[in-house]
Amino acid sequence: MSEHFFDQAVALQPDGDNAFSGAAHPAWANMVGPFGGITAASALNGVLSHPHLLGAPIALTVNYAAALGPGGYRLAAVPVRTNRSTQHWTMAMTQPGADGAEATVLTATAVTAARRATWSQSDAPMPAAPRPGEAERLQSFGVEWLERYDMRSVRGALPRTWDGSGEDSLTQLWVRDEPGRPLDFLSVASLADVFYPRVWLRRATRVPAGTVSITTYFHADAAMLARSGTGYVFGQARAQAFSNGFFDQAVQLWNEAGELLATSHQIVYYKE
Amino acid sequence: MSEHFFDQAVALQPDGDNAFSGAAHPAWANMVGPFGGITAASALNGVLSHPHLLGAPIALTVNYAAALGPGGYRLAAVPVRTNRSTQHWTMAMTQPGADGAEATVLTATAVTAARRATWSQSDAPMPAAPRPGEAERLQSFGVEWLERYDMRSVRGALPRTWDGSGEDSLTQLWVRDEPGRPLDFLSVASLADVFYPRVWLRRATRVPAGTVSITTYFHADAAMLARSGTGYVFGQARAQAFSNGFFDQAVQLWNEAGELLATSHQIVYYKE
Repeated sequence: MSEHFFDQAVALQPDGDNAFSGAAHPAWANMVGPFGGITAASALNGVLSHPHLLGAPIALTVNYAAALGPGGYRLAAVPVRTNRSTQHWTMAMTQPGADGAEATVLTATAVTAARRATWSQSDAPMPAAPRPGEAERLQSFGVEWLERYDMRSVRGALPRTWDGSGEDSLTQLWVRDEPGRPLDFLSVASLADVFYPRVWLRRATRVPAGTVSITTYFHADAAMLARSGTGYVFGQARAQAFSNGFFDQAVQLWNEAGELLATSHQIVYYKE
Repeated sequence: MSEHFFDQAVALQPDGDNAFSGAAHPAWANMVGPFGGITAASALNGVLSHPHLLGAPIALTVNYAAALGPGGYRLAAVPVRTNRSTQHWTMAMTQPGADGAEATVLTATAVTAARRATWSQSDAPMPAAPRPGEAERLQSFGVEWLERYDMRSVRGALPRTWDGSGEDSLTQLWVRDEPGRPLDFLSVASLADVFYPRVWLRRATRVPAGTVSITTYFHADAAMLARSGTGYVFGQARAQAFSNGFFDQAVQLWNEAGELLATSHQIVYYKE
């Protein structure tokens, strides 16, 4: 069986101390460069592939400095501090620029940790929703990376008419890898970025927009991910503010059983 | 007139290319090391003090790798990529470790940008609340940095009895620098971290806790900050999940006129 497109895209080859090489995968192409979610997952994979890794991801911040080009990239992933139960990482993705010199296309930080069982409590229950089989499957509109997901709309799908009539920015959907793939930290990192720009929904108007920085907090541990398997993930996204060129997006992701897997936030550039 | 304690604490001296030196200030002491908010503001000040700065802060992520010691620190602030209207930064704070070698105590990233006027909309209205003068002023309980703020409780103050009776994690308060100081990006970065650990409120139980990573998105531009002046800021904090050693905290900050200044999120380590 050939490798899943997700695993092909996040694949890294060791390339010296604290460094890897990889390449953007055409199956994940977005308008300009690859889908940001798969790039975030690739950056996190540098941490998870590192021989000195301690624990599992707790926090991941990815800053998109430039569109990733079609050629290969170099990924530095450095464990800058290892404590007893937490580890701090910095990452940077570089590609040759127009002048041939290596240029930064992405910076990132991550925290990993060896979790211990403690009192736990989720205060963000999954909203009521029809089951995935009862929700309308979204089309890919010719965008290549959307073919990599099975998305089913619950609320706030892409407006059908761009008439400026938007009222809120809330999207809810079911989503899973297409074809199915057991959920892991990398796919959660990618899923946190599957929502189209909130400004399109809020205004029912299409304007240029792109993620500048995304932060994801993982509430799931390996056991919760294993319980989630190849089931659907319920995702919700909403903006709090649109302010002179930048809006925020707050995201929650639950597994099919309603357990909160991750919360995520991003700040997005938009025009007009 | 002597300089405000806030300005004393975030002060940096140029110390080579892309580098500054500073020191933790005793007026901002917390249980272990200084208050995290003032340290985040100090890291951001490396960006704002840099001769190559483009624009104003949009996003700031600070990862606390170790407690900042009482001596001086070195802060690297590097503009790793400058685009037409956005600029990407990485920061690192180091101090000599037990072995004398420089050790990383903090990593951070920031995005700054030259904003342009666009369609704007706030979808996070400030909650109804009594005015600051009608709200009870919080005590500092002998914690030094709390003396640096005038905080007035609206809801969710520190529990008076630690009896395990907590029901939610929502705190709302008015806060401003004490004495007054005109709001700027640095003080907003610090204010995003003034809330005590959500797990204490949710459980009405005191357990060891400390911020691991905080991300703040600035919706305010310089004009909104100028309008805010030395007025109070209304802040709200709430957790979404407490999961085996780490909980998240979502924060909104509004100025006294109800304009959304910033949204912020953090992930916090806790025990038991």
